[in-house]
Amino acid sequence: MALINGHANGITASDIKLARKNGVMSNGTHNGLDNKKPIINFNPGPAKIDPSVLLRAQAEILNFQQLGISVMEMSHRSADFAKILNGAKATLTQLLNIPENYKILFLQGGATAQFSAVPLNLLQRSPNCSADYIVTGTWSAKAVKEAQKYGKVHIVHQPLEKYSRVPEQEEFDLDPEAAYVYYCDNETVNGVEFSYVPDTGNVPLVADMSSNILSKPVDVSKFGIILAGAQKNIGCAGVTLAIIREDLVGYCMKQCPTILDYKIQIGMDSLYNTPPSYSIYLMGLVLEWIQNTGGLLSMAKKCVLKSQLVYSAINESNGFYSCAIEDGSRSRMNVTFRIDGPAGDSELENAFIEESKAANMIGLKGHRSVGGIRASLYNAVTLEETQFLVNLMMDFQRRHS
Amino acid sequence: MALINGHANGITASDIKLARKNGVMSNGTHNGLDNKKPIINFNPGPAKIDPSVLLRAQAEILNFQQLGISVMEMSHRSADFAKILNGAKATLTQLLNIPENYKILFLQGGATAQFSAVPLNLLQRSPNCSADYIVTGTWSAKAVKEAQKYGKVHIVHQPLEKYSRVPEQEEFDLDPEAAYVYYCDNETVNGVEFSYVPDTGNVPLVADMSSNILSKPVDVSKFGIILAGAQKNIGCAGVTLAIIREDLVGYCMKQCPTILDYKIQIGMDSLYNTPPSYSIYLMGLVLEWIQNTGGLLSMAKKCVLKSQLVYSAINESNGFYSCAIEDGSRSRMNVTFRIDGPAGDSELENAFIEESKAANMIGLKGHRSVGGIRASLYNAVTLEETQFLVNLMMDFQRRHS
Repeated sequence: MALINGHANGITASDIKLARKNGVMSNGTHNGLDNKKPIINFNPGPAKIDPSVLLRAQAEILNFQQLGISVMEMSHRSADFAKILNGAKATLTQLLNIPENYKILFLQGGATAQFSAVPLNLLQRSPNCSADYIVTGTWSAKAVKEAQKYGKVHIVHQPLEKYSRVPEQEEFDLDPEAAYVYYCDNETVNGVEFSYVPDTGNVPLVADMSSNILSKPVDVSKFGIILAGAQKNIGCAGVTLAIIREDLVGYCMKQCPTILDYKIQIGMDSLYNTPPSYSIYLMGLVLEWIQNTGGLLSMAKKCVLKSQLVYSAINESNGFYSCAIEDGSRSRMNVTFRIDGPAGDSELENAFIEESKAANMIGLKGHRSVGGIRASLYNAVTLEETQFLVNLMMDFQRRHS
Repeated sequence: MALINGHANGITASDIKLARKNGVMSNGTHNGLDNKKPIINFNPGPAKIDPSVLLRAQAEILNFQQLGISVMEMSHRSADFAKILNGAKATLTQLLNIPENYKILFLQGGATAQFSAVPLNLLQRSPNCSADYIVTGTWSAKAVKEAQKYGKVHIVHQPLEKYSRVPEQEEFDLDPEAAYVYYCDNETVNGVEFSYVPDTGNVPLVADMSSNILSKPVDVSKFGIILAGAQKNIGCAGVTLAIIREDLVGYCMKQCPTILDYKIQIGMDSLYNTPPSYSIYLMGLVLEWIQNTGGLLSMAKKCVLKSQLVYSAINESNGFYSCAIEDGSRSRMNVTFRIDGPAGDSELENAFIEESKAANMIGLKGHRSVGGIRASLYNAVTLEETQFLVNLMMDFQRRHS
């Protein structure tokens, strides 16, 4: 069974086969999973990391590049850690072709901390202390609630019924004096993703890309700020990426906790205080893996292929499987569906989850707030793994419809 | 050379010898360090982690407890991660004998984020929105600046000349209506540590123990809140511990970012959003290592022995080495000293740093704001390693005085 997607860093398929044989890799014995077969990880986040990345981390964990210490034991103000930090920035800059007038920050607290940081840093750019928000799911709705603590929030479109689509550009009623326009490019809970970048004229666009960053090429110059927690597409939990156009900095509210102040963080190059150094290192390894396996065009192609495999299985199921999300808004990262009609049959859905576990698949249960099934197909999930899911879906349908 | 302090988790000295021989452990080749000898790590933080902890992390990084996935790939809402989180809480509760009316949180942003969180969460307990602060060094001074954004700050003693001592209890002018009294139990930059717990009557005491937590037994019931970043004594950067007396919660200011709201974090058991899961796992391993190597009494004994070794070398140097910190306030964790008089001779100090590197010691340069030499002797640093430093000091003095 080919689980391996990329062999960056000189790690070969046979290294990984050997590692697995030696019991250091993805064989599972707990929770009713079969210890003879690898786990297929569809977790919504934290999520799968390519095994070549974990093998490299394993090799270096006690002695990073013959320095004699772990990255975890390294001073964040040392030249050695500067190489790690600057290396991650350089790879990211290459991958996303980030223009020179943008700064890259490695922060803490996840996108949730940025729900506060964005209004605290930007609202005062607007004469009315007001910002525009697009609300397409659970996460953008949470961002609105947080921004309302600090100023006025204007939702720029009619409410979306059950978050089943993203609005069209024509539906937006944008305020030219807004401090910024905020949106979430991919909503993990609902499975909704933008297929276009909203045009906000001169008002800076702030995008939460926590769940789809580096899954496709992006024209960074269209954005004021791009935010992303690492734990879905670019590493492990504990570090949050912020890519910030430098002219947007300097409007921070006095009440902003220093830790969330972009100007101070930029001035100190993410080292105002001790950063989450190991998570930054791990992100650097994932960025190199993306670069060495074809970059963003390759990732984008793979993400389309994987999600189309599952959406096709849904479309061709004669209604046995159904996806509530409209065509054109369906997420390439999180495919959500119900079994036996749009409302779902909880007994059948539970049976599907049980059968998926018997096939060593984990993470397929839908978010507790919406139910159903959700397959998260982030960058590290392979086409082969996705095909196993589709095989299960077709087999399950044959036996249960 | 015996680098190994504890052999928790069934890892023996010969395992570690073998690992080092195989090039996966602390031998250094860069930066002029000798690749034949292990590194001796006196970093002020991030700092040394016991090799048995790193070896266990290495063994489990691709396949945690036969689950077939890494801790980094695990859903933070899974039963498996709950075991890791609850395991760390249980070990910490045992080690510190934490009473039932305290909650344990794993947060992000370091102590710096807590400099904001403490006033945001507690100031409204006071009718005057006022808090008392004890300022004994760089970190408590930073905490004051942050608190001043949100309310009144009253420094409860006369300014301390050059932070060379901690004030006595009798010097405190405490406000019985203060929301809380804040202090930093050990100041890493200056090398000042409290040898007693300030008595604040009915006003809750908030302690930043980032640099000395779990280096000695502590009566938790004397504190309202204990805070600690992990990266010095209890793991790697990226997670911050907060131990909070539950009756102090519920006074949060409306402007507080949700991520810093203790009530919400307690309600969600540190899982309001994705926590820094790998850093929490690593902290759990360090807590087990402390437990398996004799607990806090053993750590406390070792910390006194190590620091006394260095302070004795200073005291017996006939003024060649001098420590600006008064007896009774000298830190067991960060021993700061100058060479050739209290002002220091920068040429000799640079020579000492160079010689220490030649002896494979790292992290001895004093903080950039104060200069001189600083030896950080956190829990994972061994008595043998400290003795090597003392040997260097005595040898250096013979050759340079």
